[in-house]
Amino acid sequence: MIKRLLIANRGEIAVRIIRTCRELGIETVAVYSTADRDALHTRLADIAVCIGPPKSAQSYLSVGAIITTAVRTGCEAVHPGVGFLSENSNFAREVQKAGLIWIGPDPETIDLLGDKVTARETALKYGLPVTPGSPGPIATKDEAIPVARACGYPVIIKAASGGGGKGMRIVWKDEELEENLKIASREAEANFADGTVYIEKYLQNPRHVELQVIADGKGGVAILGERDCSVQKNHQKLIEESPSPGVTPEMRKRMSEGARNLFSSLKYRGAGTIEFLAVGNEFFFMEVNARIQVEHPVSEFVTGTDLIREQILVCCGEHWTIDPDNITLTGWSIEARINALSPGKVTRLEVPGGPGVRFDSFLYNGATVSPHYDSMVGKLIVHDSDRHRALERLLRALDELKIEGVPVNIVTQKKILSNAVFRSGQFGTGIYAQLEASL
Amino acid sequence: MIKRLLIANRGEIAVRIIRTCRELGIETVAVYSTADRDALHTRLADIAVCIGPPKSAQSYLSVGAIITTAVRTGCEAVHPGVGFLSENSNFAREVQKAGLIWIGPDPETIDLLGDKVTARETALKYGLPVTPGSPGPIATKDEAIPVARACGYPVIIKAASGGGGKGMRIVWKDEELEENLKIASREAEANFADGTVYIEKYLQNPRHVELQVIADGKGGVAILGERDCSVQKNHQKLIEESPSPGVTPEMRKRMSEGARNLFSSLKYRGAGTIEFLAVGNEFFFMEVNARIQVEHPVSEFVTGTDLIREQILVCCGEHWTIDPDNITLTGWSIEARINALSPGKVTRLEVPGGPGVRFDSFLYNGATVSPHYDSMVGKLIVHDSDRHRALERLLRALDELKIEGVPVNIVTQKKILSNAVFRSGQFGTGIYAQLEASL
Repeated sequence: MIKRLLIANRGEIAVRIIRTCRELGIETVAVYSTADRDALHTRLADIAVCIGPPKSAQSYLSVGAIITTAVRTGCEAVHPGVGFLSENSNFAREVQKAGLIWIGPDPETIDLLGDKVTARETALKYGLPVTPGSPGPIATKDEAIPVARACGYPVIIKAASGGGGKGMRIVWKDEELEENLKIASREAEANFADGTVYIEKYLQNPRHVELQVIADGKGGVAILGERDCSVQKNHQKLIEESPSPGVTPEMRKRMSEGARNLFSSLKYRGAGTIEFLAVGNEFFFMEVNARIQVEHPVSEFVTGTDLIREQILVCCGEHWTIDPDNITLTGWSIEARINALSPGKVTRLEVPGGPGVRFDSFLYNGATVSPHYDSMVGKLIVHDSDRHRALERLLRALDELKIEGVPVNIVTQKKILSNAVFRSGQFGTGIYAQLEASL
Repeated sequence: MIKRLLIANRGEIAVRIIRTCRELGIETVAVYSTADRDALHTRLADIAVCIGPPKSAQSYLSVGAIITTAVRTGCEAVHPGVGFLSENSNFAREVQKAGLIWIGPDPETIDLLGDKVTARETALKYGLPVTPGSPGPIATKDEAIPVARACGYPVIIKAASGGGGKGMRIVWKDEELEENLKIASREAEANFADGTVYIEKYLQNPRHVELQVIADGKGGVAILGERDCSVQKNHQKLIEESPSPGVTPEMRKRMSEGARNLFSSLKYRGAGTIEFLAVGNEFFFMEVNARIQVEHPVSEFVTGTDLIREQILVCCGEHWTIDPDNITLTGWSIEARINALSPGKVTRLEVPGGPGVRFDSFLYNGATVSPHYDSMVGKLIVHDSDRHRALERLLRALDELKIEGVPVNIVTQKKILSNAVFRSGQFGTGIYAQLEASL
């Protein structure tokens, strides 16, 4: 087993990785920016090295500084965490070139899955449905009508070079196609200097459902159930749960089989997530995230595993300690992300306790929430025997969680968790927008 | 379901009960002494009532004040917690007389189990072995020899009216009996004004093993595995774990069957613990504690239950949510009690996080540890897939736990958990004394 590992990250996920490393007997090297001198990950690691100023480009994204630090401190492996360089295949390549173990899949796998087109083709190849749509650009009404009919209305016209809602038009019938094609193309041209548009089936208020995967790099794949992350504000997940209230055993089986085939054929190594949009019993492949994810603790709770441990073990060529053929989901787990509404210094922190409660955070009394980084300061995760009980537990724990000095979103989270639509389990990614006025 | 419950306790266990009540939708009434005005249980409860000065006799042991408070605040039930009045059948009777639900077994059951002789007889009746010994007083060598031989050497001579080690003599062979009978009787006479002595088998370095029981008051009994509490300092438990490293499946089965018969025949209601001393594969009944116990979280972790919830449900005549025929023990859980070495004010508190870690405590930044009460300020409990991993997790969590302003026993606990004998799992109640010099 390796003796020392560098964590190329900060905040809550860096602390999370340190915890598992300590239990595995692996020493940790933290890197930190000058803004994070007193950060919890800096304090908890065995060795901490300052790698630059607060701006991420000059510190947490600085491939050279991080690899130099890893080599100089005698590390054998690099864990990228989430965000920052975690899906950067160039960084993975440089880590490997330096003779270090990359805690993640091979750079080629990252590239293959990072490309929208090849990822979609790969998913299809292994029997995972993708959102129906035009194979290429659509220019005229006559090209559009057969595609739209094949998809089934409503459809969405999207800019080929676009994103962020620009150049997007939802169309409900043949007669609306012509005008909307023109508008979308005009918007696309204006925003991306490229008027090319294409057509996809428009999923109304779909669920965001994703499977947690750990794979051993030799074709062995463990599927650790799904997570539902439909509560999102501007595509930022706010509340996650496992299992999903909208996934039937039959859906779970179909999803898992496709995912298992895909990850197995790629000889994928480490932790990964495959994301879907689901409407009713149908689901459509979206993308693979070739890393651990923020919301991994809900899967840890329902499967009784330490995912960071298994991720490190398989990437270091050690035996994992899970049995991929014998994973059962027990009870229900829900996570509420705790986000700072503005930077500041924590003047008081009280952490909830009792059964089935976990608080993963980089906060402590006196900790600084820096304006330079992500607003998430912690995750409150609970587990209980069913969804209703887990919700009551999470509300109870949110009541106990006291953070002063830095305003956080606890009240908003309590409102969402108390909302009748959320509690019914019948909702999709539109739920936040629906509730926003009442939050 | 009841709407409001009074907690006749303070500290960590009062906080623990509030947590479950909140999840059940039951309002809580806390009672507090003037020393506990700012205590966490006082703060967290829905209603808090001061019932007297710090001295327990005038507050937490004041039956009248507590029952008056319960009635006046419209409570329907009283939870006694642990310690204080929790095994006081008179209090239980007064609670019931006031028309309130007693969260515990009937007062008659408390009395029957609280009496050493009737408890021992009851255990024997249901097939649970008790420590072999003389049925009555022993006065002469000639009476002693057949009893000692029947027990098997070593035996211990004990004062009938005694306790605290006075009038106790360990005897290893026939020839030592006569002289030691005289010495023991003389010591007993000197200390208790009663020279009567009796003989029992002397158990060398036995394990303290106990079963967690929840019973529905109608003969239904759930046995939630055993706990090993052999690490004790002056009979005060320090570290508890579940399962026990010294209990085989066969022993567990025998113990559980006897315990099930006993609790079922008594139509026991609520949470209870049956304690044994074990040597090798043999075990001997010690006593029943007719209440929840401090160390209940290790059983909650390995069985995935909320014991306080089930205790309240059955005592209120509601259906429990466990299946007594389908309880499995998953993984390994260990608890380290965190004790204050002197009173004081907490100036800094940092609570560990990550998977499988739970910290139940009444501490917060600024909390006072009063000289009037028990020194235990919290319990750090972990769960993982096996004993080795649970130990590594507990050590990691103890490293993260920071308490300043009040000296605590974290260093001692780390030393015990790191000790080779403790780690081997092969130890008995003598372990603390064996290690004491090195702690």
